[in-house]
Amino acid sequence: MTMSTALLTDHYELTMLQAALRSGAAHRRAVFEVFARHLPGGRRYGVVAGTGRVLDELERFRFGPDEIDFLRERRVVDEETLGFLADYRFSGGIHGYREGDLYFPASPIMIVEGTFAEAVLLETLILSILNHDCAIASAASRMVNAAGARPIIEMGSRRTHEQAAVAAARAAYLAGFASTSNLQAGRAYGIPTAGTAAHAFTLLHDSEHQAFEAQIASLGPDTTLLVDTYDVPEAVRTAVELAGEKLGAVRIDSGDLAAAAQEVREQLDALGAFHTRVLVTSDLDEYAIAALAAAPVDGYGVGTSLVTGSGVPTAALVYKLVARETRTGKLEPVAKRSVGKPSRGGLKHAYRLLDEFGHYETELVSTSGLVPAGGVPLLTELVRDGEIVGREPLAEARGRHAEALTRLPQDALHLVRGYAAIPTEFT
Amino acid sequence: MTMSTALLTDHYELTMLQAALRSGAAHRRAVFEVFARHLPGGRRYGVVAGTGRVLDELERFRFGPDEIDFLRERRVVDEETLGFLADYRFSGGIHGYREGDLYFPASPIMIVEGTFAEAVLLETLILSILNHDCAIASAASRMVNAAGARPIIEMGSRRTHEQAAVAAARAAYLAGFASTSNLQAGRAYGIPTAGTAAHAFTLLHDSEHQAFEAQIASLGPDTTLLVDTYDVPEAVRTAVELAGEKLGAVRIDSGDLAAAAQEVREQLDALGAFHTRVLVTSDLDEYAIAALAAAPVDGYGVGTSLVTGSGVPTAALVYKLVARETRTGKLEPVAKRSVGKPSRGGLKHAYRLLDEFGHYETELVSTSGLVPAGGVPLLTELVRDGEIVGREPLAEARGRHAEALTRLPQDALHLVRGYAAIPTEFT
Repeated sequence: MTMSTALLTDHYELTMLQAALRSGAAHRRAVFEVFARHLPGGRRYGVVAGTGRVLDELERFRFGPDEIDFLRERRVVDEETLGFLADYRFSGGIHGYREGDLYFPASPIMIVEGTFAEAVLLETLILSILNHDCAIASAASRMVNAAGARPIIEMGSRRTHEQAAVAAARAAYLAGFASTSNLQAGRAYGIPTAGTAAHAFTLLHDSEHQAFEAQIASLGPDTTLLVDTYDVPEAVRTAVELAGEKLGAVRIDSGDLAAAAQEVREQLDALGAFHTRVLVTSDLDEYAIAALAAAPVDGYGVGTSLVTGSGVPTAALVYKLVARETRTGKLEPVAKRSVGKPSRGGLKHAYRLLDEFGHYETELVSTSGLVPAGGVPLLTELVRDGEIVGREPLAEARGRHAEALTRLPQDALHLVRGYAAIPTEFT
Repeated sequence: MTMSTALLTDHYELTMLQAALRSGAAHRRAVFEVFARHLPGGRRYGVVAGTGRVLDELERFRFGPDEIDFLRERRVVDEETLGFLADYRFSGGIHGYREGDLYFPASPIMIVEGTFAEAVLLETLILSILNHDCAIASAASRMVNAAGARPIIEMGSRRTHEQAAVAAARAAYLAGFASTSNLQAGRAYGIPTAGTAAHAFTLLHDSEHQAFEAQIASLGPDTTLLVDTYDVPEAVRTAVELAGEKLGAVRIDSGDLAAAAQEVREQLDALGAFHTRVLVTSDLDEYAIAALAAAPVDGYGVGTSLVTGSGVPTAALVYKLVARETRTGKLEPVAKRSVGKPSRGGLKHAYRLLDEFGHYETELVSTSGLVPAGGVPLLTELVRDGEIVGREPLAEARGRHAEALTRLPQDALHLVRGYAAIPTEFT
């Protein structure tokens, strides 16, 4: 692992750079746009996430001596290109949707302007981050909706790449999860971390009684005890016997969670532990969470389905050249004509139109500079002349997302597959 | 990002450690086992991948001053536990299946022995790496089978987390991919990297003719020209006109790839470019590759479906305590009884039984020390007394995997969903 992010890049970006330096076109002004042709998996909306990480990694996108040496040894590009890379610093501009905001098909969620040479190099890094983080946040948002007021702990680190786990925790928190199991996410992003014990802790001791006793002695009666290692009713009895009414929570990680939660709640109440919470985990996704809405559950832990985007592990975002300078110095829209992969040329503006109740009605994508009446501008400045100007605390993105959900048409929050919640119109 | 991997860990590992230090059970000898209860997605076999990365990251699993400060500030664990962590160095032993080998349900692909305290801490890191890398390699292996002798370029970096992309390239290469687009994978693991140009390069220039001319001038006639930006036949004509018969390859990235490949091949032959290869990309997975077997295609590029495990983005591997020392110093098997989540206690040995033709017949998992007649031992020593002893070049794992596939029952290489290719038996 290296601090430089410059080699998190596809080989072809550098060969394109080399050929464009040779032809002279490398120095033409260019506009690249990140957008999704569709929302995969029948999702009704996407969640913008990863913007802050793009800014962090852009700062570390430098070809130092180690990177240059590797490229030279492997003959990836020629000496002229290596010279360009050694001096490389993005000096252009980036606008983007605000993190936590929603997006729809063709929403220009990030626009990169600069010379072709400097902007083309960022394709891989930007897409890697946004495709991952938007996919996770989009799934997380549905889970948060399904959970209503009940908190969700993100606990998927063990099911995804060790660094992706940290980014997934960030995306989940942004979308409304309460906390994460991932300690590095706690350190890097200030996200609350949570967790108490696994089955191994109970199995380690000579009896469940001894394990619970040890946990309570060390972590206090307010801890969460895992009660399904052997027999759930027996474990709950032991738990309350040892911790008393102050027992924080019990966690159920197997079986029919709705039935088990009901039984455990009744047992806890019968034992006088009215304030002890019932937490459930075990392969939960947004549908399983929704199915537990009527069960006496106080919180959820979600792992696998969160970090894999609940069936949609990548967001289908692409990074396309939409305009470039001509030989005569004019900025001109461009678009390929490949079968089945439409893209629209031109530097875009984007606005969201609201109805009289403040609900989102239309996503307006425009190549003219005209601001539509009542349109809320969606693009904000993130990088100006190579300097990062769009940083914000993660909490702001989290608040923005919570607010955005209140403005969606009500039916967009249902879990059924469908079309985008609002139409995208082009002018 | 930090060089230490210690915080790539779930909060509950540390609270378990604290409680076990308090109860004294932390110092009991313990055996943890990594296995899959099932092969997700109807896969017939799994591919062991990530072992080398586990060893690399284990070496960097140290709680330095920064990590300790964070844990103290956030009150994750108490001072006694912080003291233990500051001195932490894994001093136990790890055995595992060799990288590139196959696995089946209940195969003990990694066994970690040490005190509970030192072994429990590694759960998250080991599972993150193995769940990701095994999932990718298992999908990649099916693609390589489907492609037969034709090479596949891994080009999925833009569709997954930026660091997961590097690991995915490694897993794909291990499973038989020819090369990757990811430059960091080239640097970190010596994997051949490949790539020439995207549509943006053609769109940048005033005409496709100028773009191809620039690319050939810079990268030579042996380059790969992307021919579907505008009109494929027109592009192929231009390509051969400019590069001549020495044109390396053309790439088609949209449309009906079988039909397009056929047309392009005929056109190339008519133009005398008999040796120019036809490469296809565009949402390929193992099924699409298989469907192109009869088409005149010389190579594939695979992105999204590779890095997302082709529908199975995580390998369902778990890390379970299977044995621990009792109060009297005896190592005793343990297993939880949670509904629907079976696990078998005891320190395991594993052997593969072959039929008279050298094909795999049975996966034998045993808790006795008896070596079955003709059984090939599957577990090798990776870490002894905390020292890494099981490192090997990636090329060895790649060769091992290629050989292992020749020993599978023939029907296991079909793409249809089914049961594990060979049964797992327990003694």
